[in-house]
Amino acid sequence: MFGKMLENVRNTCPLVHNITNYVTVNDCANILLACGGSPIMADDRDEAAEITSICNALNINIGTLNSNTIPSMFLAGRRANELGHPVLLDPVGAGASGLRTDTARKLLEEIRFTCIRGNISEIKTLAAGSGTTKGVDADAADKISEEDLDSAAAYVKKFAAETGAVVVVTGATDIVADSGKAYCIRNGHPMMSRITGTGCQLSAMTAAFLAANTDQPLEAAAAAVCTMGYAGELAHARLSEADGNSSYRNYIIDAVCNMTPEQLEKGAKYEVR
Amino acid sequence: MFGKMLENVRNTCPLVHNITNYVTVNDCANILLACGGSPIMADDRDEAAEITSICNALNINIGTLNSNTIPSMFLAGRRANELGHPVLLDPVGAGASGLRTDTARKLLEEIRFTCIRGNISEIKTLAAGSGTTKGVDADAADKISEEDLDSAAAYVKKFAAETGAVVVVTGATDIVADSGKAYCIRNGHPMMSRITGTGCQLSAMTAAFLAANTDQPLEAAAAAVCTMGYAGELAHARLSEADGNSSYRNYIIDAVCNMTPEQLEKGAKYEVR
Amino acid sequence: MFGKMLENVRNTCPLVHNITNYVTVNDCANILLACGGSPIMADDRDEAAEITSICNALNINIGTLNSNTIPSMFLAGRRANELGHPVLLDPVGAGASGLRTDTARKLLEEIRFTCIRGNISEIKTLAAGSGTTKGVDADAADKISEEDLDSAAAYVKKFAAETGAVVVVTGATDIVADSGKAYCIRNGHPMMSRITGTGCQLSAMTAAFLAANTDQPLEAAAAAVCTMGYAGELAHARLSEADGNSSYRNYIIDAVCNMTPEQLEKGAKYEVR
Repeated sequence: MFGKMLENVRNTCPLVHNITNYVTVNDCANILLACGGSPIMADDRDEAAEITSICNALNINIGTLNSNTIPSMFLAGRRANELGHPVLLDPVGAGASGLRTDTARKLLEEIRFTCIRGNISEIKTLAAGSGTTKGVDADAADKISEEDLDSAAAYVKKFAAETGAVVVVTGATDIVADSGKAYCIRNGHPMMSRITGTGCQLSAMTAAFLAANTDQPLEAAAAAVCTMGYAGELAHARLSEADGNSSYRNYIIDAVCNMTPEQLEKGAKYEVR
Repeated sequence: MFGKMLENVRNTCPLVHNITNYVTVNDCANILLACGGSPIMADDRDEAAEITSICNALNINIGTLNSNTIPSMFLAGRRANELGHPVLLDPVGAGASGLRTDTARKLLEEIRFTCIRGNISEIKTLAAGSGTTKGVDADAADKISEEDLDSAAAYVKKFAAETGAVVVVTGATDIVADSGKAYCIRNGHPMMSRITGTGCQLSAMTAAFLAANTDQPLEAAAAAVCTMGYAGELAHARLSEADGNSSYRNYIIDAVCNMTPEQLEKGAKYEVR
Repeated sequence: MFGKMLENVRNTCPLVHNITNYVTVNDCANILLACGGSPIMADDRDEAAEITSICNALNINIGTLNSNTIPSMFLAGRRANELGHPVLLDPVGAGASGLRTDTARKLLEEIRFTCIRGNISEIKTLAAGSGTTKGVDADAADKISEEDLDSAAAYVKKFAAETGAVVVVTGATDIVADSGKAYCIRNGHPMMSRITGTGCQLSAMTAAFLAANTDQPLEAAAAAVCTMGYAGELAHARLSEADGNSSYRNYIIDAVCNMTPEQLEKGAKYEVR
């Protein structure tokens, strides 16, 4: 099923509007191209809504939010809602500053999100105000262990029910859930956390999967998570002794670029809880 | 002749002022260094004109234009005109939003451009208001086929005559024309469209070629287009089975870095129409 | 000793707040992760001070400063001073525009910097108003030769005494000095100047070293300089014939990622003057 979803991205080449941070934006654009989508970045309020209207999905990432781009997030989000486009929120660093937490919360109040993707600290911040975000990475205190997986899945399902969104919590084990069903995904490699922006890249790519598979947002998001994680495994297997995190970054995008639907179908490691 | 033009870039190390988007800016800087130029990025209105005055060329790219950077484009453009510096316009996404189309048109009215580089949809938008831009990529309906090449060359020459600029339309076959002469260039590889920013990179590099070869802007632009396209061929030949678009991006810049004037002379594939 | 300092970065994983340019920001983030630190980028005035307060060091880089980010530099700098966090200034392009020179000078007046890192032209601009900055690179007229090394070291020590900061001047030979002692470092490779942002990356990494070794800022900065330079040597040795500046960029970050304290200890090439 996940293979078919990747195939749908390749066949429909969804155009994804990204209002995102300037740190990882180039990698977001290249991974969108790698998976078969097409990126456009536009964050000025004088064009944000118009650009969204010619796109197939909207990816809002608050990684380097500022007073110019925040209004654009709302303008584009509302327009995307009107048009019925999938909209994704990546609440980068929610909990690390009042501006980030407040902006993410207001976005959740005013915009209907198809999907919310963050680490556990960011999601906890939004769900309960209890996350302890350490910069843009999840805090150790929030980490999900194998023993906690059932309760974590229940927690994510509950937040999904409250928001009406598919919620993606990425970590050692990723959880992708709507109100009724949770995919626990075991693809990926620990070294992915030594690259900046694997989360941002996943969010951008998830928006493309949502656009190409509008009738199954839960499975579309899970397929994107498996694609990213499995690419992380394939890329890691390719590392030479001299390669480090910078080459690894390139290899992950390369692996997405070369991934076939059949490969993904075989490589995806998940269970439903 | 094109080899000599690359050599001139290497020998004079032109400093290129870029007011450009934050998506592909790092690759623009690295390809400028690769070809033998030197980059500086500065987009605040309080320094845009001053920075331009110490540079040898100006590259204006509207890829992520906003209310802060648009005035800087005009300020720098006017100063570069006063100083007789080559100025290039890359109208990224013209046709995709009113802000982009209007800004590009106003720039064309107020600034004298040495060169305008875009895909066919962007150029059609500027020339006739008829382009059907799909995001930042050319629309299929606008694509130039081999049969249409003569009429396309005539079209590009006409726009060149109207603007007084060398016009570069990149696609499967690239057209580089002034009012009287068109180079049709067949370097490049289709996979280049799976990397973000090959167009932006070409624009930045073209500005360096224009600065190093001020007496022959048409040939300078054509030489830059051949350099980029031929680098795309060399880089493609180098791809291993596991390499994808991210490694390809690196290899293209590498190929520009290592390209000798002799190699370019031999590898350039063009005809004049 | 320098090996121990790298080990301290790896063991404490300092979170570095970067207010930096959008050209090289991704490489800054990846090199921070490579050395064992953690990056966060935030430049809006509504969160700059708050973000700094949860971090271990602040890196201010004026590479693409603008009217929105300049106030954030002051707000974050003051807060970091209040909290006793290490603060680093990278005065990119000081001397190239009044805005850059003035902003760097005002920052020096109002903020207490632990470290200032620039090329010789930028440092001369700040120290005496006499630098002749060519864009963002040092001007040939300012270059330090082997014969001038003693007087250059004295010059850097004097500026260090005036500012109370450790001053790092990077070039063919790097000088890292406080008021009493100068490390002259001979790591590195000339090809590093063909990559955009090796200076910015070094500044970001130096902030992490300062945070992990607060009691020895001079040695911490020298250790960071040796790490970057030695990584440049290791990465250069790894270049294949087809590799150019883009692959070289990746290999340098890779080399930092893989560098062990023992390797650094052996590879560091310096003398004290």
